[in-house]
Amino acid sequence: MPDSDQALAVTGKHAAFGLEETRPSRSANPIYSVGIYGATGYAGQVLMSILAHHPNVRVAFATSESSKETVEGMELVASADAPLASVDAVFLCLPHGPSGAMAAKAVEAGVRVIDFSADLRLDSTDVYKAFYKQDHPAPQLLPAPYGLPEINRAKLIKAKYVANPGCHVTATLLGLYPLAKAGALTGDPLIVDTKTGISGAGKALKLENMFVEAYGDVRPYNLGRVHRHVPEMEQELHKLQPIVGPIIFVPHCVPIDVGLLATIYARVNPGWSLDRVRETFEVAYKDEPLVSFLPAGKVAQVKPVAHKNNAVVAVTEGAGDTIIITSAIDNLRKGASSQAVQSFNLMMGLPETAGLL
Amino acid sequence: MPDSDQALAVTGKHAAFGLEETRPSRSANPIYSVGIYGATGYAGQVLMSILAHHPNVRVAFATSESSKETVEGMELVASADAPLASVDAVFLCLPHGPSGAMAAKAVEAGVRVIDFSADLRLDSTDVYKAFYKQDHPAPQLLPAPYGLPEINRAKLIKAKYVANPGCHVTATLLGLYPLAKAGALTGDPLIVDTKTGISGAGKALKLENMFVEAYGDVRPYNLGRVHRHVPEMEQELHKLQPIVGPIIFVPHCVPIDVGLLATIYARVNPGWSLDRVRETFEVAYKDEPLVSFLPAGKVAQVKPVAHKNNAVVAVTEGAGDTIIITSAIDNLRKGASSQAVQSFNLMMGLPETAGLL
Amino acid sequence: MPDSDQALAVTGKHAAFGLEETRPSRSANPIYSVGIYGATGYAGQVLMSILAHHPNVRVAFATSESSKETVEGMELVASADAPLASVDAVFLCLPHGPSGAMAAKAVEAGVRVIDFSADLRLDSTDVYKAFYKQDHPAPQLLPAPYGLPEINRAKLIKAKYVANPGCHVTATLLGLYPLAKAGALTGDPLIVDTKTGISGAGKALKLENMFVEAYGDVRPYNLGRVHRHVPEMEQELHKLQPIVGPIIFVPHCVPIDVGLLATIYARVNPGWSLDRVRETFEVAYKDEPLVSFLPAGKVAQVKPVAHKNNAVVAVTEGAGDTIIITSAIDNLRKGASSQAVQSFNLMMGLPETAGLL
Amino acid sequence: MPDSDQALAVTGKHAAFGLEETRPSRSANPIYSVGIYGATGYAGQVLMSILAHHPNVRVAFATSESSKETVEGMELVASADAPLASVDAVFLCLPHGPSGAMAAKAVEAGVRVIDFSADLRLDSTDVYKAFYKQDHPAPQLLPAPYGLPEINRAKLIKAKYVANPGCHVTATLLGLYPLAKAGALTGDPLIVDTKTGISGAGKALKLENMFVEAYGDVRPYNLGRVHRHVPEMEQELHKLQPIVGPIIFVPHCVPIDVGLLATIYARVNPGWSLDRVRETFEVAYKDEPLVSFLPAGKVAQVKPVAHKNNAVVAVTEGAGDTIIITSAIDNLRKGASSQAVQSFNLMMGLPETAGLL
Repeated sequence: MPDSDQALAVTGKHAAFGLEETRPSRSANPIYSVGIYGATGYAGQVLMSILAHHPNVRVAFATSESSKETVEGMELVASADAPLASVDAVFLCLPHGPSGAMAAKAVEAGVRVIDFSADLRLDSTDVYKAFYKQDHPAPQLLPAPYGLPEINRAKLIKAKYVANPGCHVTATLLGLYPLAKAGALTGDPLIVDTKTGISGAGKALKLENMFVEAYGDVRPYNLGRVHRHVPEMEQELHKLQPIVGPIIFVPHCVPIDVGLLATIYARVNPGWSLDRVRETFEVAYKDEPLVSFLPAGKVAQVKPVAHKNNAVVAVTEGAGDTIIITSAIDNLRKGASSQAVQSFNLMMGLPETAGLL
Repeated sequence: MPDSDQALAVTGKHAAFGLEETRPSRSANPIYSVGIYGATGYAGQVLMSILAHHPNVRVAFATSESSKETVEGMELVASADAPLASVDAVFLCLPHGPSGAMAAKAVEAGVRVIDFSADLRLDSTDVYKAFYKQDHPAPQLLPAPYGLPEINRAKLIKAKYVANPGCHVTATLLGLYPLAKAGALTGDPLIVDTKTGISGAGKALKLENMFVEAYGDVRPYNLGRVHRHVPEMEQELHKLQPIVGPIIFVPHCVPIDVGLLATIYARVNPGWSLDRVRETFEVAYKDEPLVSFLPAGKVAQVKPVAHKNNAVVAVTEGAGDTIIITSAIDNLRKGASSQAVQSFNLMMGLPETAGLL
Repeated sequence: MPDSDQALAVTGKHAAFGLEETRPSRSANPIYSVGIYGATGYAGQVLMSILAHHPNVRVAFATSESSKETVEGMELVASADAPLASVDAVFLCLPHGPSGAMAAKAVEAGVRVIDFSADLRLDSTDVYKAFYKQDHPAPQLLPAPYGLPEINRAKLIKAKYVANPGCHVTATLLGLYPLAKAGALTGDPLIVDTKTGISGAGKALKLENMFVEAYGDVRPYNLGRVHRHVPEMEQELHKLQPIVGPIIFVPHCVPIDVGLLATIYARVNPGWSLDRVRETFEVAYKDEPLVSFLPAGKVAQVKPVAHKNNAVVAVTEGAGDTIIITSAIDNLRKGASSQAVQSFNLMMGLPETAGLL
Repeated sequence: MPDSDQALAVTGKHAAFGLEETRPSRSANPIYSVGIYGATGYAGQVLMSILAHHPNVRVAFATSESSKETVEGMELVASADAPLASVDAVFLCLPHGPSGAMAAKAVEAGVRVIDFSADLRLDSTDVYKAFYKQDHPAPQLLPAPYGLPEINRAKLIKAKYVANPGCHVTATLLGLYPLAKAGALTGDPLIVDTKTGISGAGKALKLENMFVEAYGDVRPYNLGRVHRHVPEMEQELHKLQPIVGPIIFVPHCVPIDVGLLATIYARVNPGWSLDRVRETFEVAYKDEPLVSFLPAGKVAQVKPVAHKNNAVVAVTEGAGDTIIITSAIDNLRKGASSQAVQSFNLMMGLPETAGLL
């Protein structure tokens, strides 16, 4: 199905740097046709801009129910008019409910799916119903491969559909995954205190997200265990280490447009010195193209990852057996759209970072 | 020493509201003469604006070593030229070191002192030296009354000198004091995650506080137990409950000018239900004119206290025995200048909220 | 009707400063009862906070059709339930149309009116209809005294009702009034380029005023001669100097919450040197308590007037006969609520700056 | 000197979109080696990020006198250690004075130069001395080709060195060039009112550019005819239409990091209807890859061009013969670094937009 031509794959971030000649040699360059459902939201817009420069993608259509505007120069169509069956893959930037229904339709048509909504993230339809207050729209697709490549790469390669994680969850799991995998965490509460840009709330017109209201404010919301991201965090952590948590999660809106910092306070088991913790992170991330683990003395912060596709993680001494992990991403990129493309690349057998460096 | 005339004391915040006639009756209105050392910093400027409207204060002088500008219409003088002995009280908005030395000089001259620096906050000169890397400039003044009226009111009335608390410490102690006083806290780590406006860093020219650098960023700094406010927090908590903590403190710079939110994660002893915790806060703050404890379901946030003299505290359920406390202040007001005036009022026998409502 | 007691009038901004004893002597202190229609908008909230500290005002009621919240500690009532006839004056922070209708009703009941809407600003019902697309709700009140005290003080003293000017108009007229009064302006286009905080757009939920949209943007809107403030500007200028203009007006939204800067480019007649222009401004504003004219070399900017009740104006050399005037106000204060209180004070025979210093 | 291989040139922004297969055919892909002097400033950083993705560039070195940090993963060297003679071209992001001197040295070594400083922009050494208060460092290079490709493309192709324009000048000239070229402007003052992000001030530590100072402010500076960009604007306009102006220029700092909007008020000669003006712009920009002229009813604003390499221009009716032109760019991109790369591409015979779409 992919088109093919004798083009060149884009390689390495800094191909332009260094004394060695690093131009790629010629190779097959497959081109996949994709569709985007919901292209006018903040994640949809960023996705469109990433795909516009992806060497292996041709965007065949992008949908919007309401807007007649163009995104990245492309005219939008109503989803009913989109030629779903003609593309290789679809990205669903739709609300939960409709998104899961469209995912099922696409999978049935043999089209690969990357779903940005929460619909495919939770393995349990009961938990879904408890947190989203509706029946699951596509239980036949559960459990879906969870699209966090650094944790779950093997299951994403050639996958037919993928649940793209939420932004708070991505930052949190990248900050905890190496420890959970190594069994280092205790059963004490895991404190996850995040600070997020207002774009995380989407484009819905709410007074609290008006400029004058958000300007100059720092506002915690959905504190404790009531945020919809809590079960998603715990589900994925439990797959790595069965007994951890519970997670106490407090997201805060801060007056920036994009970016997310998670400050995580975690207790570790006896024998887990700070050095051992750091070494575990270093090993976990040393070959990851889109996650950087910072050296001792450094902390993750938002600005260096804003408008970037990568994540940054750091570990700092707390007190006793409590360590402090800082983890930063762009909520619309590694927390949404660039992570979706990373999963897409794995699904299609492309270089994982195609279009992302 | 105070001047006196037959003027009227300003009363209650909302004297103008309500159906009852609430105009004050006539009474003695003492006027105190004060001096301000270091009037050009952010805290000094806010202090000047508060005192300009204080019904019992005449600002006799304000100093600046570097600036020839005026503040609130007043010409500044070099501190060497300020008539220290002629005033009733001085506010010291100076760097630590010089501030303590000036405090000693003023006390000797029989002038009351409110010291904004860290010099009088720590009871131990050893701890001072460990965190401030210098010998204490005025050990003979230690221990000084700690100027957090809600906790320490009795010791501030008629005090000769007062250590004005730091902003992070004020928000944190207001969030923990009722529990510590009741012996509710455990010995587990107390997590204090604060988000602060950039004015907290003062006017020093540093790249990290330039507009372009701070804009769009969330930046943690001095994580864990290295920030100079940690020993101050623990010292005051230990006076209320000998065994608590240790405190793990992570301040974050967020792109706002003023305001500070502390999100505190604390474990409580058996028997401390959320209801009992809330009731303890309600009792502690129900008569406090400058601290509001919010009803269940509400959280503290920065904007409602920005440019205001009061603090707001709320309690939310966490998980298990961990509760979440949010505590918000304006870092330059209840975290600095209005708190200083509150202590000054107590020291002078004035209504505690004179000039502050 | 006013209550009276033997209280003290608040005097001078910096009564607290200086070596002279400046406490006021005792005098009669009338108390007026007022009502506020539309207390939950941005101007209404600021008005409530000003009146809460006004020594001659008791707020009897404040209305909101939609909100059950309190403002400044006062419970809001529906306007239908407000005891209109029982108060001395009402402030109308309502949309145009309903505001003019309520103004007529209040005037009929013998209650003084300060109308924040556009309804009473334009003398001509035809111009009103052309710009507001509806019939005038209260033509019998036209022409109304125009509530810009620096220009129109005589007509405001003891006035029964007043049209409170718009924020762009206030900054513009304060920047042009001394020249127009002196006949210094030519008939060439007057360029008025304003930069305004987002609160000027009110609380209506519009995508363009969402945080993520306004953040990082500078957006001109209603350029040229289409903005509703243009006829208001020209009407008042023409009363001072019959032939000026036309005004070319370009407002810009900038990402701040409050504040407004007008940069005005005006040509002056032969004989009007920069020195003569400056002298004219100096004379015009030297006794104004709420307008400062800056010395040569200084410019007006937003921050010094944000959250303040005063205006700042400066004049700078342009080229040839074109001069540059910068004029800054807080759009919600001197551009709305504090100006309304200034007019109220004049209407009631109070000191003009009562509650404003 | 350029390396060459059989790679593919990157083409058109949206090669990925549309139903047509738009993959480029194979062609020669020359690789040029470049050096960057002054890579740690804001323009230098953006330049590095652009060049990192440029298909025809290998960055051989980047210099910094002070910083040991890396930029885009590249270690910086002191300029004295940089192998100037080994590269094909250098980008000079240095202060004026040293920049011109380095330009002369590079030209002598046969290395092409794109100079970001003001040193090569003014044709007259007298004007240079009047505005920059020093002797010209390289008079032998004057007059240099002025690097605004839309105006001056022919002179940039194969040029040995280029003066890269300032950001205010770029926005202004793009807003006036079609009219000046057509002789449409009158001799009346041209009003240029710009609003610029704080990054335009560079990284120098000044109080006015600290976060707390710039936050919430709109601040005009260097008003009238004193800004160093005025002679640059007038020089280039006079080459197109000998009698225009004078320019009255008022730049304003607004609290955004990047972006610049110029609002221009210009009078046009008889016969220049708004339609004719618009048509002139349409013709001038219809084939420009990096400038968009907006349809009637639209205005230029900052956000759509922030972090982008293109400019947007619009024309709106003013009054009489005065028209309003809005022109927006990213000050660090089309106002600095991407424009430099655009000139570089022309100098090297590359596609003009290589690395920029």
